[in-house]
Amino acid sequence: MRLRKKPWIEAAIKEFSQVINPADMQMYQGNWRKLCGFSPEAPLYLEIGIGRGRFISEMAKVHPAVLFIGLEAVVDVLYNAAQKVEENDLTNVRLMAADAVGLTEFFAPGEVDRIYLNFSDPWPKTRHAKRRLTHSLFLGRYRQILAESGVICLKTDNENLFEFSLNQFAVANMQLANITLDLHNSGAADNIMTEYEMKFSARGMRIYRCEARFR
Amino acid sequence: MRLRKKPWIEAAIKEFSQVINPADMQMYQGNWRKLCGFSPEAPLYLEIGIGRGRFISEMAKVHPAVLFIGLEAVVDVLYNAAQKVEENDLTNVRLMAADAVGLTEFFAPGEVDRIYLNFSDPWPKTRHAKRRLTHSLFLGRYRQILAESGVICLKTDNENLFEFSLNQFAVANMQLANITLDLHNSGAADNIMTEYEMKFSARGMRIYRCEARFR
Ligand SMILES: C[S@@+](CC[C@H](N)C(=O)[O-])C[C@H]1O[C@@H](n2cnc3c(N)ncnc32)[C@H](O)[C@@H]1O
Ligand SMILES: C[S@@+](CC[C@H](N)C(=O)[O-])C[C@H]1O[C@@H](n2cnc3c(N)ncnc32)[C@H](O)[C@@H]1O
Repeated sequence: MRLRKKPWIEAAIKEFSQVINPADMQMYQGNWRKLCGFSPEAPLYLEIGIGRGRFISEMAKVHPAVLFIGLEAVVDVLYNAAQKVEENDLTNVRLMAADAVGLTEFFAPGEVDRIYLNFSDPWPKTRHAKRRLTHSLFLGRYRQILAESGVICLKTDNENLFEFSLNQFAVANMQLANITLDLHNSGAADNIMTEYEMKFSARGMRIYRCEARFR
Repeated sequence: MRLRKKPWIEAAIKEFSQVINPADMQMYQGNWRKLCGFSPEAPLYLEIGIGRGRFISEMAKVHPAVLFIGLEAVVDVLYNAAQKVEENDLTNVRLMAADAVGLTEFFAPGEVDRIYLNFSDPWPKTRHAKRRLTHSLFLGRYRQILAESGVICLKTDNENLFEFSLNQFAVANMQLANITLDLHNSGAADNIMTEYEMKFSARGMRIYRCEARFR
């Protein structure tokens, strides 16, 4: 997934009207719906680590009334997602080349209704645990930006990351729901697959999923 | 595990001083510690579906200050457990041939500090779901007899039962803890194995475990 950095990408990415410049965050924070032309009641769903953007694009097609924001730390990867969003004329998607560490500067408290974490990097070494997107440090950020009934939706092929995440959710006193240890054999009909998910499930690997809410 | 019923068992089981007659439950309910010679502060741990009793016997050796009560629906199976308890002179174990459906008649509210569910029958058919020992119907019974900080400890090789249980715990608004998707590769040093666990793990099957508390 980590492509060799193409030098022209930084400039090319600016051509996409749906790609937001992180330098504009002060303007966007607290005003996403308004600046994107959505009503104050429109749901705002955030995906962190969108990769090449299959999931966010397909979701945006199915839910045109939802404003989808996609974060991706690697700009070369984001470029592919931006192309997909433009080709499909998805006016309800915005993308940003940014690291989730900065989340609380991107969104105002309670501004986000849902956070999708799909096949997040597992960071298997214990000394890298803080980089896992379900580490309590990240949960603290999510808690700040999520609305009252906001939910985190996690999908992964990585057993250790899943186990870690369940325990981090539990320690954070979150309410769990819809836990599945084998998504593709659980009859979940409306599941939209990510690129990683297509790859891994084609190899017969099992996919874990769950939802978590702060109380 | 379900042996052919031996006709002499019903009589033989009465010979064991550690086996309690379910007919005496009115006497025991609310008085377990006193009648078993334990102080009112002694922890009382209940295992449901003890099978041949390896787990409860080994636990009782390691925790002599804890009063262990073992329930087993099949009397022929309980007989093996009773022999084990007697051979090992375990004065802190009591056994009972009874079905967990009757739990609230066996224990007073708050009388139990911990419930162990080890390799409970999975009852895979949906129409049998109510028989699963983590069905909300059973959770309701556990909630009644468990003390304030009481905990349910679940171990199973059955993925579907584990997933079902996590979701039942979540729906019951329980606090989850120490979830592991692969107990034998998680470095849990003090794990005491049950008979089923020895058999399944010898075949390389993964063992799931978690703890759950009512709020
Ligand atoms: C393993 S890929 C999965 C991509 C996609 N979600 C999928 O399922 O196909 C993880 C992605 O998350 C991105 N990522 C990892 N940590 C991130 C962070 N802290 N902030 C934003 N993106 C991150 C990585 O750059 C990578 O593209
Ligand atoms: C699969 S065996 C496991 C035995 C043992 N716990 C082990 O891990 O080796 C399940 C046991 O639970 C008992 N059992 C099932 N449902 C029960 C119930 N409702 N009340 C009491 N015992 C039950 C069965 O008779 C059986 O002996």
